[in-house]
Amino acid sequence: MSENMIKIIVDGFGGDHSPYVNVEGTVMALNEIPNLSIVMTGDEEILKQEFAKYTFDQTRLQIVHAPEVISCEDTPTVAIKQKKESSLVKAYDLLRHEDDIKGMVSIGSTGAVLVGSVLKLGRIKGVKRPAFCPILPTMNGKIVGICDSGANVDCDPINLEQFAVMGSLYIKKAYGVENPKVALLNIGVEETKGDALRKETYELIRNNESVNFVGNMESRDLLTGEYDLIVCDGFSGNVLLKSTEGTAMELMKLIKKIMTANLKNKVGAAILKKDIMGIKDLMDYNNYGGGVMLGVTKAVVKGHGGSKSKAIYNCIKQAYTMEKNKLCEAIAEEIGKSMEK
Amino acid sequence: MSENMIKIIVDGFGGDHSPYVNVEGTVMALNEIPNLSIVMTGDEEILKQEFAKYTFDQTRLQIVHAPEVISCEDTPTVAIKQKKESSLVKAYDLLRHEDDIKGMVSIGSTGAVLVGSVLKLGRIKGVKRPAFCPILPTMNGKIVGICDSGANVDCDPINLEQFAVMGSLYIKKAYGVENPKVALLNIGVEETKGDALRKETYELIRNNESVNFVGNMESRDLLTGEYDLIVCDGFSGNVLLKSTEGTAMELMKLIKKIMTANLKNKVGAAILKKDIMGIKDLMDYNNYGGGVMLGVTKAVVKGHGGSKSKAIYNCIKQAYTMEKNKLCEAIAEEIGKSMEK
Repeated sequence: MSENMIKIIVDGFGGDHSPYVNVEGTVMALNEIPNLSIVMTGDEEILKQEFAKYTFDQTRLQIVHAPEVISCEDTPTVAIKQKKESSLVKAYDLLRHEDDIKGMVSIGSTGAVLVGSVLKLGRIKGVKRPAFCPILPTMNGKIVGICDSGANVDCDPINLEQFAVMGSLYIKKAYGVENPKVALLNIGVEETKGDALRKETYELIRNNESVNFVGNMESRDLLTGEYDLIVCDGFSGNVLLKSTEGTAMELMKLIKKIMTANLKNKVGAAILKKDIMGIKDLMDYNNYGGGVMLGVTKAVVKGHGGSKSKAIYNCIKQAYTMEKNKLCEAIAEEIGKSMEK
Repeated sequence: MSENMIKIIVDGFGGDHSPYVNVEGTVMALNEIPNLSIVMTGDEEILKQEFAKYTFDQTRLQIVHAPEVISCEDTPTVAIKQKKESSLVKAYDLLRHEDDIKGMVSIGSTGAVLVGSVLKLGRIKGVKRPAFCPILPTMNGKIVGICDSGANVDCDPINLEQFAVMGSLYIKKAYGVENPKVALLNIGVEETKGDALRKETYELIRNNESVNFVGNMESRDLLTGEYDLIVCDGFSGNVLLKSTEGTAMELMKLIKKIMTANLKNKVGAAILKKDIMGIKDLMDYNNYGGGVMLGVTKAVVKGHGGSKSKAIYNCIKQAYTMEKNKLCEAIAEEIGKSMEK
């Protein structure tokens, strides 16, 4: 195996369209990225049958049998501890014990993936709380990360400071943004705004030299492209993420309804359709991969449960890029530095 | 003066288009609602000149001179205490001391209006924290309230329980929704989701017989029309409100850009324009009045700073309806009941 080969493990099950999209997305990734090798966990027979449909370099694929599946109905902590034969737990066990496996992709239960990353993989030394950081496309064609967006509902200022450090490195290493603009989610832009948590965090981040802190931001400016990373507690980050997605979805539904309301509108819609649907494309998470778990020892990418093959491909590419650019090492170094102070 | 006459005080200044919209909106209200009388505070000369442009029943209007204006740059607490000649402080002083003035409308600084409502007017007995409750239109033509959405960034479970009680009465009394569906903003719909605050609040509201509690909700479902009132702490409520408004605004901007991108699109847009612009209308706060401060002794309506005349008219109608349907008395009674327990 080439020195530059990067091995990623893919959880073959758990999504709405698994394992079909997992397999197809993996094939896309193997055909696109020469230095990639994949281990996939899941029911061996089913996976073999699926992979048999495609043409790709089979020497870079390994299938590991794992007949169980963790569903969204399972309680995450219980499932991670008890469903030892599940595709997710098998993937985590291998990720933990095999040095040459550098990252994992799953589109299964968010709770189980997050819990598993901490219980099975563990934190980078010095990281108090790993954080979940999904990204959203902005209206000017850039991306913005939201860290944390659900892994930690109760946070201290030091947690938020670490989210800023880790998220900043992630945006830099995974998306090539040189000096990511980091803002603190607040109820106003003035320095004095917010609760005790926000005020203390503001001071901490402002004094952290490794973060390009641009101050407070309001949720209404999330999609303007003005910011590269939003720092927040997991509760408000989750509210922010889901209300943005929800509003966009409801509006697009309404527009679709208008465009098909009557014959006249259908004529107008026929002209505009391609461009209007381009918005859907712009907002489509399938084009952007998944959210990542920052602060654990290896790359963990969690794709949307409804992911299609392209999303799986993008998630794999994300994990590959994170490893290639040594994100976990960079986080360990930066967090280590701030611990010394 | 007729027995049924309801007197509302209107802050004549403080908005982006004040006092023009304040005056025109007031005239609209006086002409629409026979049992309404208005007191307006602000620079007397300017207001007199403005009102002179319109035809209306002048016996139902009184102008009170107040030459100062509180701006958004003023610190709310300082401004309320020191700018005694401002249109807002004058309005609050009259609202407090004149029994026959039943409510106030302002489109000035949100902070100053909220702070003033507590400092100048005071809380209804038993109410621990008054809350700010704006409303948003939903995609099926209904409305949804968000309580609290910025007045209280740190909350206890008892605060959120009271927000549920007050908000529920408001939606009922001001919008005629018989049995408002109340949901708790959370990061998942399951009963066990969220932080300690959410878990405790869930139990409190569930056991409160005066609230039609339908459980947890996720921010993505805000606009579906499934809920009439969302209960939350002021921090996450503010994030929810502004991200919903911001996402809608950014998307509409993008659609406008597409519709004018080239000649072909302009042709399609010409056909669809009226209906697509209908979405803007649907989402236009001018059609829905303002947010209200719940838990203070009289009706306080805070309109958007960018309000047009129609919004002022709707804000006045809101204050009028709140008084007509005795909202403050109902809150006092219901909160009193739950204090006895």
